[in-house]
Amino acid sequence: MKEKYVYMFSEGNKDMRNILGGKGANLAEMTRLGLPVPQGFIVSTKVCEKYYNDGKVLSQDVIDEILCNLKKLEKLTNKKLGDKNKPLILSIRSGARVSMPGMMDSVLNLGLNDEVVEGLAKISENKKFAYDCYRRFIQMFANVVMGMDLSKFEKIIDEMKQERGIKLDIEFSADDLKEMIEKFKNLYSLELNAQFPQDIQYQLVESIKSVLKSWNNPRAIVYRKMNNIPSNWGTAVNVQMMVFGNMGKNCGTGVAFSRNPANGENELYGEYLMDAQGEDVVSGARTPKPIALLKEQNLEIYNEFYKYAKLLEEHYKDMQELEFTIENGKLYVLQTRNGKRTAYASLKIAVDLVEEGKISKDEALMMIDAKQLDSLLHSKFVDEELTSREVLTKGLPASPGAGAGKIAFSSEKAKKMHKDKQDVILIRMETSAEDIEGMLACMAILTARGGMTSHAAVVARGMGTACVVGCENLIVNEEEKYCIIDGEKFVEGDEISVDGSTGNVYKGIIKTELATISGYFATVMQWADERSVLKVLANADNAKDATVAYNFGAKGIGLCRTEHMFFQSDRIFAIRQMIVAPNSEERQKALEKILPMQKQDFEELFRVMKGYPVTIRFLDPPLHEFLPNTESEIVELAKEMNVSYELLKNAIDKLHEFNPMMGHRGLRLDVTYPEIAVMQTKAVIEASINVKNEGIEVNPEIMIPLTCETKEYNYVRDIVVKTANEIIEKSNIKLTYKVGTMIEIPRATLIADEIAKTAEFFSFGTNDLTQLTFGFSRDDAGKFLWAYYDKQLFENDPFAHIDEDGVGKLVQNAVKLSKQTRPDIKLGICGEHGGDPKSIDFFHRVGLTYVSCSPFRVPIARLAVAQANIRNRN
Amino acid sequence: MKEKYVYMFSEGNKDMRNILGGKGANLAEMTRLGLPVPQGFIVSTKVCEKYYNDGKVLSQDVIDEILCNLKKLEKLTNKKLGDKNKPLILSIRSGARVSMPGMMDSVLNLGLNDEVVEGLAKISENKKFAYDCYRRFIQMFANVVMGMDLSKFEKIIDEMKQERGIKLDIEFSADDLKEMIEKFKNLYSLELNAQFPQDIQYQLVESIKSVLKSWNNPRAIVYRKMNNIPSNWGTAVNVQMMVFGNMGKNCGTGVAFSRNPANGENELYGEYLMDAQGEDVVSGARTPKPIALLKEQNLEIYNEFYKYAKLLEEHYKDMQELEFTIENGKLYVLQTRNGKRTAYASLKIAVDLVEEGKISKDEALMMIDAKQLDSLLHSKFVDEELTSREVLTKGLPASPGAGAGKIAFSSEKAKKMHKDKQDVILIRMETSAEDIEGMLACMAILTARGGMTSHAAVVARGMGTACVVGCENLIVNEEEKYCIIDGEKFVEGDEISVDGSTGNVYKGIIKTELATISGYFATVMQWADERSVLKVLANADNAKDATVAYNFGAKGIGLCRTEHMFFQSDRIFAIRQMIVAPNSEERQKALEKILPMQKQDFEELFRVMKGYPVTIRFLDPPLHEFLPNTESEIVELAKEMNVSYELLKNAIDKLHEFNPMMGHRGLRLDVTYPEIAVMQTKAVIEASINVKNEGIEVNPEIMIPLTCETKEYNYVRDIVVKTANEIIEKSNIKLTYKVGTMIEIPRATLIADEIAKTAEFFSFGTNDLTQLTFGFSRDDAGKFLWAYYDKQLFENDPFAHIDEDGVGKLVQNAVKLSKQTRPDIKLGICGEHGGDPKSIDFFHRVGLTYVSCSPFRVPIARLAVAQANIRNRN
Repeated sequence: MKEKYVYMFSEGNKDMRNILGGKGANLAEMTRLGLPVPQGFIVSTKVCEKYYNDGKVLSQDVIDEILCNLKKLEKLTNKKLGDKNKPLILSIRSGARVSMPGMMDSVLNLGLNDEVVEGLAKISENKKFAYDCYRRFIQMFANVVMGMDLSKFEKIIDEMKQERGIKLDIEFSADDLKEMIEKFKNLYSLELNAQFPQDIQYQLVESIKSVLKSWNNPRAIVYRKMNNIPSNWGTAVNVQMMVFGNMGKNCGTGVAFSRNPANGENELYGEYLMDAQGEDVVSGARTPKPIALLKEQNLEIYNEFYKYAKLLEEHYKDMQELEFTIENGKLYVLQTRNGKRTAYASLKIAVDLVEEGKISKDEALMMIDAKQLDSLLHSKFVDEELTSREVLTKGLPASPGAGAGKIAFSSEKAKKMHKDKQDVILIRMETSAEDIEGMLACMAILTARGGMTSHAAVVARGMGTACVVGCENLIVNEEEKYCIIDGEKFVEGDEISVDGSTGNVYKGIIKTELATISGYFATVMQWADERSVLKVLANADNAKDATVAYNFGAKGIGLCRTEHMFFQSDRIFAIRQMIVAPNSEERQKALEKILPMQKQDFEELFRVMKGYPVTIRFLDPPLHEFLPNTESEIVELAKEMNVSYELLKNAIDKLHEFNPMMGHRGLRLDVTYPEIAVMQTKAVIEASINVKNEGIEVNPEIMIPLTCETKEYNYVRDIVVKTANEIIEKSNIKLTYKVGTMIEIPRATLIADEIAKTAEFFSFGTNDLTQLTFGFSRDDAGKFLWAYYDKQLFENDPFAHIDEDGVGKLVQNAVKLSKQTRPDIKLGICGEHGGDPKSIDFFHRVGLTYVSCSPFRVPIARLAVAQANIRNRN
Repeated sequence: MKEKYVYMFSEGNKDMRNILGGKGANLAEMTRLGLPVPQGFIVSTKVCEKYYNDGKVLSQDVIDEILCNLKKLEKLTNKKLGDKNKPLILSIRSGARVSMPGMMDSVLNLGLNDEVVEGLAKISENKKFAYDCYRRFIQMFANVVMGMDLSKFEKIIDEMKQERGIKLDIEFSADDLKEMIEKFKNLYSLELNAQFPQDIQYQLVESIKSVLKSWNNPRAIVYRKMNNIPSNWGTAVNVQMMVFGNMGKNCGTGVAFSRNPANGENELYGEYLMDAQGEDVVSGARTPKPIALLKEQNLEIYNEFYKYAKLLEEHYKDMQELEFTIENGKLYVLQTRNGKRTAYASLKIAVDLVEEGKISKDEALMMIDAKQLDSLLHSKFVDEELTSREVLTKGLPASPGAGAGKIAFSSEKAKKMHKDKQDVILIRMETSAEDIEGMLACMAILTARGGMTSHAAVVARGMGTACVVGCENLIVNEEEKYCIIDGEKFVEGDEISVDGSTGNVYKGIIKTELATISGYFATVMQWADERSVLKVLANADNAKDATVAYNFGAKGIGLCRTEHMFFQSDRIFAIRQMIVAPNSEERQKALEKILPMQKQDFEELFRVMKGYPVTIRFLDPPLHEFLPNTESEIVELAKEMNVSYELLKNAIDKLHEFNPMMGHRGLRLDVTYPEIAVMQTKAVIEASINVKNEGIEVNPEIMIPLTCETKEYNYVRDIVVKTANEIIEKSNIKLTYKVGTMIEIPRATLIADEIAKTAEFFSFGTNDLTQLTFGFSRDDAGKFLWAYYDKQLFENDPFAHIDEDGVGKLVQNAVKLSKQTRPDIKLGICGEHGGDPKSIDFFHRVGLTYVSCSPFRVPIARLAVAQANIRNRN
């Protein structure tokens, strides 16, 4: 049977996202539900796949199928493409399986040429409307399909506005627009050396191709990488009859949410513009009106829309974002999808829907984007600091959270400053898809224009970045890199603070603080914990981090990096003495100095964690990391240490390594200098005894890093056990402790059954394991990985999401082997993947016991482990 | 049932080596065959295992079993330990599964104390003999069991010689020896603060313990590592009744081979000394007589010994090395084992035994130590150079081969000079076990003392290092680091040449050349090839190496490292231009310059290999390897390149990597700079066409290095295929070529099924794969691996022998996966393991197609692949 490539809306439903894309499947579903949807057909994702497989060619059989469906659509609408008497005007829009807002191209108002536009003018009895549609089409076709720069068209518009002394596009007369069309067409032929195409079928096919092509434009690739969307999914292309919101006073268009996407309140929320096309609402060129006003303006339409919004919410069991158009007093629904929302709204909506009896707790948990919770955990201005500050200006609170930093006026600059470890506030007139990377790099976004559904607002909410938009008192000069806020001038690098929850903007830096887990958040976390198999622990090296982790619900410390304590200025001296010690005796002397400090650190951790396991990893990095490397620093340090320059220099030179990542570090240090393992064991065990003597439960776990061979692990383990047991026996305390190892060297995964004989737990160090399995160093990979992303050879950063095909196989193998020897072995992961929901799903599936992540990711991980369990338990 | 720990000789046989050790099993076998073997019992290797498991304690049940067997022995010999009227005197010797000559300790003449020695004097009617035995025992017990320095005893002997004006030990009178005993005992009690023990049972138990302990002495550990002997095998301890070669004129002792171990001639070959103990023959203190003289001195004994030697050779189907003692005219055989021999002798003996109908060709092949063939492949003085040289002096030709280099007088110095890339000749008075590492590091060994069975001779033959011993005209002053050869003084660093095949020593450096494969060698190689499954290819980067490989029988080139050609002075300039090129255009220009040079290289290789596959690996190392790194070099190069210092410095800085081994190299270079792959493909394909036009068959295989992901491999492969096919289509030549990849990144082994879809062959790069699997860099591992060997955490160098437990599992997995996708995939290995017989056995077992090794190891690999097949086919 011939494969089916194109579907009429009436042929699909919401479960066909994979083939119809999200937008297409929802259009089909709404058609099925009997909603007033302008009809059309969907060029399926299979066409996209075929298009790329065929070497970016749209094959004739697909074109034939498109034309065949066009015929059906013409019959259905009783209009005809290119027929001036009953012209069918189309929108051509992308639509991937998951929404990638603004990332791909669309072509609207397709179906017009010099002849048809006159027909449209006649039928609509609205020349201005018809010419407006045509000039929009020329502009969009030239830009999207032919790659011309939009600014050249905008320049013509601006010049004509100036000539006529008008401000808004809608003020142009029909004749103005006709003149504009001529100017546009002249520009087109001048730039492209060809006439603007009058063949409408050609327009259609080229537009479909350009949407397919846009699947692989750079910003779509970046977005996919960011959101972990495979490149082989492809996009569908929705070809839909246009209805017009710009046909006159009785027309309009808008975007609205079935609940408030900022705070989750159960109220219709959105914006609309009369006599406008959809792009006018989103672009921020005209400031739209709140949807509530529609109620006053046209109660009937409002009620009809409200009914549809609630119906769709109930149907999809989630808050919906709808686009609608009113054409001559008739309402059309153009699109529905699960609406983007703030993390806070996400929690409230989920809990509310459960309480309203509309969804189960499982469904509620699955509905929340775990990664988004991040925004609830980082940023809120410290109350005491706020009270003394005057508000500089106020805009729309588009995405909650607080950010303070230095101003940048371009995405480029923001990226650069971020790289230089500066906190950045990105200020723009309005943002566009090109700004994504800058938006990712900043603490907060502030724009002069745009509403709550503008690009800046939507994207910032998705990212969980604080954002204030439509700030009317803000004048931005992006070219000359300054802005004026309420009369005061700010240049790049000046400091401001932006509160996305209130819309307030402040001068200078205001300290931010974390939110705590309460209310809806706490409810969701409780539901999550009830559904978890994996435990969530945290990586914490000091009492401060441990406290954050504990408060965020961590069930222990999965990784305490003892060396982090070494870098403190009062300790580094003793560490350096230990390193340059000429013999074991001197080394032991230096270690003796470190012992009480380490002990104190551990005592503090134990007190915070109140009996939860505290996993202490022994010294890991190569020793040269503790020593300086410039001549002047060495001279200075030699003086300070009271040793000769030559001695110190020689010690440093001897520690030089060609590939430090694969050098003398981890337990290799303990094998060569067993006295280090002895000291660290003493510190852990003596601290445990002290804290236990205070009446606090203690569960220390000693973790030996970098094992690659059973015998080497056993050598160090035996030192630990001997040292520990001697101390415990001498004390009158009954103390139990565990000894285990990091599994971060490929070889360790291959002999995990052997190592598990004497290791009571494993913690997968997936950072190092990823480096060694891929054979590239994270520090160096930047030099070539850009090309891998550009050429789509890698789609994901394997350090962000675990590489299931490679690294994952090693983990899986190690799990299997270790359970053969020790069925109850405790298996965790403490690389960065421990806080990544996608990776957590994998760790759940392979059967780990716990994940350990940074304290700030603990709530994310708590939700993600529940989601993993729900997702996989069927 | 109680485990049996101790065996009488009569309870064992030759197949019990694992439990009785090699020496013990052979003593048992000879007992079984009815040969005149002094009886005894064997403390089995299980005792050694138990001793170490129990924490270096000899448990009472084992001691009881030893004493019980002692009783049996006393009954059998009608002698009694410690009984002055019929004293049993014992030797206590080590004996591992495989011979580790001189590596472990022995105690001889055990059973004497102040009382028994008088009894022995009386019974033997030879006071001098009895006292000589006792003083030897005191000396040995003090040294081996109590750890005293031998030189202190030797000092006493030397002083007494001087007092009495005598030269040799045998010139001492009985009274002298009695006095010496007193002096020895005094020294003993002075040094150890204890009387020399008179309790003979105590002597026995302590001696057995010290032999067990010597299993883990440093030189035994080094030897095991070198010879790949597992540390858990342990040693047996042979307790044997002494017979005495030093009881008078009618007594003697000797060592002999059933065939000539130097040249393989079928003749009894060896040395003996009358009125001596075995150690006197081996130590080189007295120069022994050739065994042929025994025929004249005592035909009957000679004939009896000859009979035994031939009987044992026939029985063991291999050339035997025997130790014998004549006690009062009666012959005893003390030991037999397969004799060490030169590589040449090894080949001749194997072929002769086949021709004599005594063994099969399979047995012949298995009998040859493949590694030893090395000595036949490297060194022979160039004939023309030799004719003009005068022989400086002459010694015994102890191990064939020629070596030229700078003199070193200590093992330490030899190691150091070798590390500095100097060719070294080690000159010693005589060598001992402590010299092993120096002997490994040198081109040839020259000693003043010792015979053909001296330590230097035996060890050098085993190593395949040229060696001349017993050079009487050589006076060595090791302390002051000079020697006098035939009146001329040489100091450390002076140059000489040593011919181990003739015994000649020359002044200055004589050029050496390779031997060719002919005669017995050719016969063995032919038999080997007939039994091979794995093909043997060579790693060769230029026509010279390729020619050597071809002549040594390589069936193609398995690895041509294209970058090696880049370092030639006339090319490095273009390479550097390519590297600092600011854009793709400039880069291409530089590459254009390199193209004709690469093409020419490949043409030469194709011509030499005459249609055998030539596997060309694309550029592999990180680019910074081609650039200088000191300031002055950069300044100079900038001038030479006519670019600014800043530009060059900046380019070099940008190439800096933290972990270059895991950096921007291999196919990552092709992904970022596809023009490199294009140029290299052009060079390979155009060269192929040119050579094919000459009428020579060509089989190029393009190998892409460092693949870790299928898509990246396919990206480069597609460039190769597109470029190659365009050129081939344009030519009128039908050319086939293969494209494949190195498998050297752990991840590649895990997705081998995917990669094999488009890769026609794999070559395992086990050097990098070992580094990444173990997580240590070879360049850095020296900083800590010493501790791993010291502490026996590693027993083998994983770069010398493939790590079957870890790296091997990845290889095996990749083989399995790749055959699922492409059953006929060509699978090779081109790391250093390709020339290692032990690793080759593994590669045979996992089912590779070929191994590729350095040209000089090709014959070794040819034999090893045959042995692997013979060993595994049952």
